[in-house]
Amino acid sequence: MAPKTNAGRFFEDYAVGDVITHAVPRTIKMGERALYHALYPARHALHSSDQFAQNCGLPFSPLDDLITFHTVFGKTVPDVSLNAVANLGYAEGRWHTSLWPGDTVTATSEVIGVKQNSNGKSGVVWVRTEGRNQHGELLLSYVRWVMVRKKSDGPAPETVIPDLAKVVDPADLVIPQGLDFTKYDYALAGEPHRLSDYKVGEVIDHVDGVTIEEAEHMMATRLWQNTAKVHFDATFRPDGKRLMYGGHVISLARALSFNGLANAQMIVALNGGAHANPCFAGDTVRAWSEVLDTAETSAPGVGAIRLRLVATKTAAGALRGADGKYLPDVLLDLDYWALMPTG
Amino acid sequence: MAPKTNAGRFFEDYAVGDVITHAVPRTIKMGERALYHALYPARHALHSSDQFAQNCGLPFSPLDDLITFHTVFGKTVPDVSLNAVANLGYAEGRWHTSLWPGDTVTATSEVIGVKQNSNGKSGVVWVRTEGRNQHGELLLSYVRWVMVRKKSDGPAPETVIPDLAKVVDPADLVIPQGLDFTKYDYALAGEPHRLSDYKVGEVIDHVDGVTIEEAEHMMATRLWQNTAKVHFDATFRPDGKRLMYGGHVISLARALSFNGLANAQMIVALNGGAHANPCFAGDTVRAWSEVLDTAETSAPGVGAIRLRLVATKTAAGALRGADGKYLPDVLLDLDYWALMPTG
Amino acid sequence: MAPKTNAGRFFEDYAVGDVITHAVPRTIKMGERALYHALYPARHALHSSDQFAQNCGLPFSPLDDLITFHTVFGKTVPDVSLNAVANLGYAEGRWHTSLWPGDTVTATSEVIGVKQNSNGKSGVVWVRTEGRNQHGELLLSYVRWVMVRKKSDGPAPETVIPDLAKVVDPADLVIPQGLDFTKYDYALAGEPHRLSDYKVGEVIDHVDGVTIEEAEHMMATRLWQNTAKVHFDATFRPDGKRLMYGGHVISLARALSFNGLANAQMIVALNGGAHANPCFAGDTVRAWSEVLDTAETSAPGVGAIRLRLVATKTAAGALRGADGKYLPDVLLDLDYWALMPTG
Repeated sequence: MAPKTNAGRFFEDYAVGDVITHAVPRTIKMGERALYHALYPARHALHSSDQFAQNCGLPFSPLDDLITFHTVFGKTVPDVSLNAVANLGYAEGRWHTSLWPGDTVTATSEVIGVKQNSNGKSGVVWVRTEGRNQHGELLLSYVRWVMVRKKSDGPAPETVIPDLAKVVDPADLVIPQGLDFTKYDYALAGEPHRLSDYKVGEVIDHVDGVTIEEAEHMMATRLWQNTAKVHFDATFRPDGKRLMYGGHVISLARALSFNGLANAQMIVALNGGAHANPCFAGDTVRAWSEVLDTAETSAPGVGAIRLRLVATKTAAGALRGADGKYLPDVLLDLDYWALMPTG
Repeated sequence: MAPKTNAGRFFEDYAVGDVITHAVPRTIKMGERALYHALYPARHALHSSDQFAQNCGLPFSPLDDLITFHTVFGKTVPDVSLNAVANLGYAEGRWHTSLWPGDTVTATSEVIGVKQNSNGKSGVVWVRTEGRNQHGELLLSYVRWVMVRKKSDGPAPETVIPDLAKVVDPADLVIPQGLDFTKYDYALAGEPHRLSDYKVGEVIDHVDGVTIEEAEHMMATRLWQNTAKVHFDATFRPDGKRLMYGGHVISLARALSFNGLANAQMIVALNGGAHANPCFAGDTVRAWSEVLDTAETSAPGVGAIRLRLVATKTAAGALRGADGKYLPDVLLDLDYWALMPTG
Repeated sequence: MAPKTNAGRFFEDYAVGDVITHAVPRTIKMGERALYHALYPARHALHSSDQFAQNCGLPFSPLDDLITFHTVFGKTVPDVSLNAVANLGYAEGRWHTSLWPGDTVTATSEVIGVKQNSNGKSGVVWVRTEGRNQHGELLLSYVRWVMVRKKSDGPAPETVIPDLAKVVDPADLVIPQGLDFTKYDYALAGEPHRLSDYKVGEVIDHVDGVTIEEAEHMMATRLWQNTAKVHFDATFRPDGKRLMYGGHVISLARALSFNGLANAQMIVALNGGAHANPCFAGDTVRAWSEVLDTAETSAPGVGAIRLRLVATKTAAGALRGADGKYLPDVLLDLDYWALMPTG
């Protein structure tokens, strides 16, 4: 057997300042858009209709913001999370430019932190990932940290823990060029609620549930060229289960949130997120949101709403137990900024 | 909890004359075409090949006629059938303009009839739905009636039952502009049979069967942004089953009918239809057709054939029992007009 | 019941010299490309990125070579393998022109050999199939032979066994016009290994495994309009299993082979192949490759590598038992030429 296959990186293979070029650029076209609609109950009108998007000042309907996220994330898997024990968190995620059909996505990650665990067998690695289009324009940047196994007993590197913002400052949100919600059509969007109708602390139960099949989460994960064994190989885990890609739960919960947040049209920042518990085929996923903040933006008629999006297998509203830990039925706790019409 | 989510309309929320604008316009592109071929064994050549379509006088291959139907139908679900107890029937369906990749579909429904049931707990609502493209051109219109729950004990509205045609008059069929079957290529279409080869009363067993999986019917239903809970949430029904969207059975049966009706190229009218029994994942669906009528059209070489299309879980030919009711294995009884070459 | 459906051809329906025009031309667009990525873990950069392909001298990223194969193969099923007992082999397969989004595929097959079996109940038929695009250019040609049932007790035809090459001569490989690997980007391709790094006899374990679901293999098979009952109808076989289309295993194994053969970018010849054992949903498919040969080509920086690609349900390397027969866990043994950068 020749050592031609990629065994993935271990903790000692990351040094602060390293920049990793991720392989396999990907041109995204119309087909990925249709598959996104087949795999998730996505209904936000700006991503559904060219005419609706044009009425909002855009040239036509951009690909769903999470397609950008998944495509970039997928590129990083062979270099960042092939030997990851856990996906620990996200921070400082910002969407800079929309992804249009025909665009080609490339990605790089800079190692910005390392900290060996006290057991000496693994460590935490922080990377700042950037996805760019074929013109070199930044599509998306975010920080992710993962726990990675060590391959040897070598000494611990110097600990570097990056200083990360808890929340993206609303002043730093990038508003898509030309976006204008002053002629926004609420009837076609599906709900009358505008930014001022949402109060901080308000909780919205998105009502619907979706029971997930293996074929669906595998097709979705493969579509983004995410190749982590644990999602596809039923012989990989001792329990014979295929772990669902956490991003599948993100897209599912975001799509479900249409019902109550139909006007939270575009995701522009990812403040943080935790995959609270694993999700498997057969689970019925529901979602609820909590309004965390609202803000103005410089674009006409465009406000920003900061939302906690929770995916769960039970009722809306419950998040943590008395011990402060996520309840066992909670799958996802995501904190993001979206753009919403103000008037 | 805030009441921001759509609970759907109840019987008393419909008044004759109301026109409902359905939300979330949808731009359909190439990807939906490919997914249609992945989800159904669709082989009618006019919807498969640009060159075949051009040889029939069209600019290129239009999207399958049922994609128009599903997209328009999906738009209506949140407003018409979210609280529907049963989907009772269709009438006066006509396709007016083909759907081309890049077109954006919007839909409206006018309430044309209401009749409270004698139990006072539900009623029947008739709507005439129109789907239009981005130029405002009519793509499809049809009447559908559903049984809907009442939310209160209020008085019954005045009963209005629309006068509906049993069959679309062949003189009213809209033939796609330019359609010309005089150079029709039977070898490429797959079968030699032309309109004169079919006799009224003839029954055709389409031979093939397809066993359906949950992932397939859910992806298909989601693709048309149909969000009725019963199709997706395994916890919704007491028996833990996800009811298949009736339109999935329509498309499946229509695709199976290629084998024996390969030249029934385009659907131009929906005379009526009943979802005779529910369909669930694991069912093996077969189809048979009965020739109900034939007619001439004004387009060169183009005739019309009126077909009963039956989806069933057993043998071809059987439809109703001695009691006049649909046999338990019958899933669908559809009555439509298709265009077929005459010579 | 009218005899309007196609019962397929039997052994006596094939005569050497007959040319069969296969029905239902198919226009392939962007959507099929996206579905290919959703159904297989395909990551070869030349089929993933327009920019990568342009850097290799092509106008943009062509559709995966196996999409050409599956589309052409699917066309032949109603005429060649509807009554086939077994798919016995492939030879002399060559890709002549790339398939581009928007191309329409047609196919014909010439009967080049027949040999009745000694039992008098079936026979072997050899066909040379050609797939062409809308300009009449040859996309792909290959020989396939199948065992087909006889329908009567008629006399045996004269035996004709075609003289087939064991391997396509590397001098006969068709290199896509303009292909140039002198500026090849190994970092973006995903691996540093070039042709000279591979030694004849070397075995590469592709490491990853994929557990297959019914919905996935049926969607893939349907996408290529392959309608053989055995893939779709769970009531067709006595054991209630749906046999997976052999081509699904080919594409899956080829995609898995990225891990170790990321630079074997394009398939240009199919020397031979055997579907060693049936594959069913629930099976976890792995793959390994053996380097059989290498060769030069006339294109700048472009070499050819001849590979044995084996799909298996167990470990890499094992192929046949002491009796010379394929081991029961071996699913596929494929022999092909691919193009790889030399320097």
